Parts: sequence; structure tokens; C-alpha cells
Amino acid sequence: MIITGSIEKARMISCKRAKLGKAVGFIPTMGALHKGHLSLVKKARKECDFLMVSIFINPTQFGSKGGYKGYPRSLAKDKKQLKEEGVDLLFLPKESTMYPLGKERASVCVCENNLSKTLCGESRPGHFKGVCTILTKLFNILRPNIAYFGQKDYQQALIVKKLVKDLNFSTKIRVLPIIREEDNLAMSSRNIYLKGLARKSSRCLYQALELAKKLIKSRERDPKRVINQMKQLVKSGELAKIDYIEIVDASSLKKLKWIKGKVLIVLAVYIKKVRLIDNIILNVKK
Amino acid sequence: MIITGSIEKARMISCKRAKLGKAVGFIPTMGALHKGHLSLVKKARKECDFLMVSIFINPTQFGSKGGYKGYPRSLAKDKKQLKEEGVDLLFLPKESTMYPLGKERASVCVCENNLSKTLCGESRPGHFKGVCTILTKLFNILRPNIAYFGQKDYQQALIVKKLVKDLNFSTKIRVLPIIREEDNLAMSSRNIYLKGLARKSSRCLYQALELAKKLIKSRERDPKRVINQMKQLVKSGELAKIDYIEIVDASSLKKLKWIKGKVLIVLAVYIKKVRLIDNIILNVKK
Repeated sequence: MIITGSIEKARMISCKRAKLGKAVGFIPTMGALHKGHLSLVKKARKECDFLMVSIFINPTQFGSKGGYKGYPRSLAKDKKQLKEEGVDLLFLPKESTMYPLGKERASVCVCENNLSKTLCGESRPGHFKGVCTILTKLFNILRPNIAYFGQKDYQQALIVKKLVKDLNFSTKIRVLPIIREEDNLAMSSRNIYLKGLARKSSRCLYQALELAKKLIKSRERDPKRVINQMKQLVKSGELAKIDYIEIVDASSLKKLKWIKGKVLIVLAVYIKKVRLIDNIILNVKK
Repeated sequence: MIITGSIEKARMISCKRAKLGKAVGFIPTMGALHKGHLSLVKKARKECDFLMVSIFINPTQFGSKGGYKGYPRSLAKDKKQLKEEGVDLLFLPKESTMYPLGKERASVCVCENNLSKTLCGESRPGHFKGVCTILTKLFNILRPNIAYFGQKDYQQALIVKKLVKDLNFSTKIRVLPIIREEDNLAMSSRNIYLKGLARKSSRCLYQALELAKKLIKSRERDPKRVINQMKQLVKSGELAKIDYIEIVDASSLKKLKWIKGKVLIVLAVYIKKVRLIDNIILNVKK
């Protein structure tokens, strides 16, 4: 596995493979890799000739300095895992490489102004601007044929698809299913902060999604009633504070008056100070 | 000369040349080509193995519908000239190709938030957002090694350089000198709208720049005094209405308290309803 922090070297290596007609795959990460990331790596390894992973904790997508500083880091372990999975190139730039004049003086940014206005975009102003900007930079450096994202960040994946479409990137976006712990907690780098009771409380996210699924299966079609029951379930648990619980159209992310079609049931919940998100997609026939 | 309106075809052709290691050049235009454009074409033709020109009147960079609708068009003549100059590929997309869902539903945009806040950016809100977004799209489609811009749109060229740097495009930006009519009016597609007295009045832009140059040569260093004299000159002419006249640092575009270093003297003037811009750069030693 080639490891480099140099934009020019990474660009050159990737470009060389693309010129040879190789299928070049890419998985952008912020490190602290878990089984969710590794599921992307395994799938991409099967589909691509040359596989690149980046680890870069992007400061411009965090609202608070604490969020950035407190983000989990496990670089030695990450490197080992990526090597074992047969990754070809690990791109590991420094902050000063990606933002050479400091992130404040990077005056060009990429914004999505529709899908990013709701859900996590509403709770975390500027987050998706940071995401779109860093992905544009990484795509421009590495020029992948295919890039892989996890469904846990469903809104992010949808925004990245729009980014690629609206800005005419030639990269294909693949979105792969959520990987869960044994008790169904969605895999997340932040899960390591959940100990004891907090870890146990975190089950309420998936339980709420299961409850919604059950209600909809038993013909409930009013999103308000479903959301209310989900809220009650989450509130009844200890340590949990709801950020949002929504049922939206899975393509437009618009709120629904009636549950029908491809719907996204999605929630963000704080367990103590750890913000967790989860979602399921249902195809509701009538 | 290959002419295509297809993104996929243009992308494929350009990509093929790049894979062969050819130097691929690109000149984005809005058509209505004049000697300024052709000077870029001639220079690029010498420097590149494969030369691409686009003609696309980008609706998202016009503030008013009138500006877009009234923009001059001379496609047949443009094609003939480009062919004669030996251009290899003319990319000629329709609006529905560049904005397939309509420009309102293209929710991703690229913004520059520093250099674009002043001068033309102040007079034309949203203009540079439109420029940055369409150039990102065109660069992503055509992936040129070098792209050419004229110094008449000095602010645009500076913003494009920042765009390329901040978003890690591998394209090099070349900025070539202003080409002028015999009476020193800067070449512009809009000049065809200037007849009789209006055409004669338009000389005031360059005259004002010449006056500034003379004043600075005779050791005037106070930008306010120079600007005031320029304003008097422009105002004294018929039909002219000043949009802005400024003396700024040529790198930061910040207003100067004292004329020193590499300075940009720049103005935008309406002659009747035709908005004209012009500029000169001076290296002022002390």
C-alpha cells in the first residue's frame, strides 16, 4: 500500500492508473475506521482495479472546534486494516496541504442549497458546505471512476450524488448499506465514546426505526403519529436527547403529509454528548 | 474541427487526448468572438497539441434576463473563425445540456467569497457565482491542462486562479493582455452596440486610465486624487455613467490608501445602456 500526504504524488499515481484504463475506486474517510468503512473497502476492492482511501479529518465540516478536536483518531490501526484489505493507495494529507493558506483563506467553496437545508443540514449549519468543498477537492486530486459512501449518512450520499450531477464530475457514486453492531446500533466512529448505560441507551435509535416500520406495516400512514410514537420511545430512555426525528421523501428529503412511496425514516439523537444518526428506507405501496 | 453539444462526447474526446499525453488547451467563451478572443486562440494554438473552445452563454451569470437575452450572438461567424484558427474541438452545449433540470434546480454552486465581493462582484451580485459554477462544470467535462483568459476581465481571471487553487484543479490558468481597437477601446462583444456618439464616448475609459498613468508617473500617490480626476474626465463626456472607478492592490483587490507596488486601475462605465470595463496594471516603485 502506497501511503502519501502529497497532492501531486497522489494525483500522479491515480492519473497513471486511469490512463491505463483501470477502474479507479475511492473511499473518502475521516479515519477511526469501523466495520461500516471496511464493508465499503471490501466491496470496492472487488469492483475496482486500483483502490484509494483517504483519511482526512476535514476541519471545515465541523461547527464547533470541540467537534473537530474531539473526533476519534486511530491512525496506526486504520493503516493496518487498510493494508490488510488490499488498499492500493492511502492518501493522508495534512491540514496545511489541503488548506495551504489556512482554512479561513480558502475563499472558494461548494454549496448545495436544497437537500442540505433540512435534517443534519439544519442542525449543523455549514456542515454540508464543508463536505461538498472537501469532496470536490479530493475528487479533483484523485479523479476516481467510482466513489463509495455509506447509507448511514443518507443525506450526505444524496447531496454527493447531486454534487456530481450538477458539477459534471465523471465519478460514479455507490451507496452501500448500513452495517450494525450485534444490538443493531449503526456502526459509527463515535460509538467508542458510548460506555455502559450510554451504550445501552443508544439502542433507542434503531428501536424507534423498528417501531416506525411496525406501525407503517400495520397501515399507519400519518407521519405525525408515527413520529410522535418514535419520540415517546426515545424520550422514555435515559440519557437521550432528540435532535430530530423525521419521515421524508427519500429523493427530495421533503416532509410528507402522508406516508407513501420511497420514504426515509431518519433520526439524530444525542446520547449524553455523542450525536448519533440512523435511518431506514421503506417502500410503502399505498 | 469537431463540433459537439454532447457532454459525453466532448469528455471522451478530451480524455482520449489527455491519455496520449497531449497538452490539452481550453478557451471558454460566450461567443460573439472578437480579436481579444482570437488572440487567446492564436496563443493557445501555439502552446497546445489539442485546442478546445466552448461557446455557451451562461444564463446563471447574468443578473437580469435582459442581459442574457440581449447578449450578442454570431454563431456562424464564430464557427468559421475558430475553424480558420485551427481549433480542434468546439464544445457547443445547449442550456438544457448544462442545466438539465433547469438552472433553478441546479442546487449545487461554487462561490468565491473574498475577491468577488468588490468591483464587478459588487455591481453584479451573483455574477461570479455563475462564472465559478459554469467553469467548474466545463473544467470537469473537458479537463484541460491549460485554460486561457483575457486580462480585460482581470477580476474574473484572478477569481479563476483562486478557484483552481482552492479546489485543486490541475488546470493551469494563463491570462493574456487586453486587445484594443485603433482608438484604444478594449475589445468586447458588447462593442457592436456602440454606434456614432456612443462609440466615440466609449474612448473615455482608456483616456481615464491614461490620465491615471500620467498622474502616477508625475508622482501622485494618493488614490483618491487620481480617482477624482478620472471621474471628472469620464463625467465630462457625453452619455457616460460611472459604475465604479477604483485603484486597488492587483493581488488582493483591496482598496489602497497609498499607490505602491503592483496596482490595478480599473473602471466600469455605462455608455447609454452598454456596460464597459477596462483596466491597466502598474508597477509603482515608491
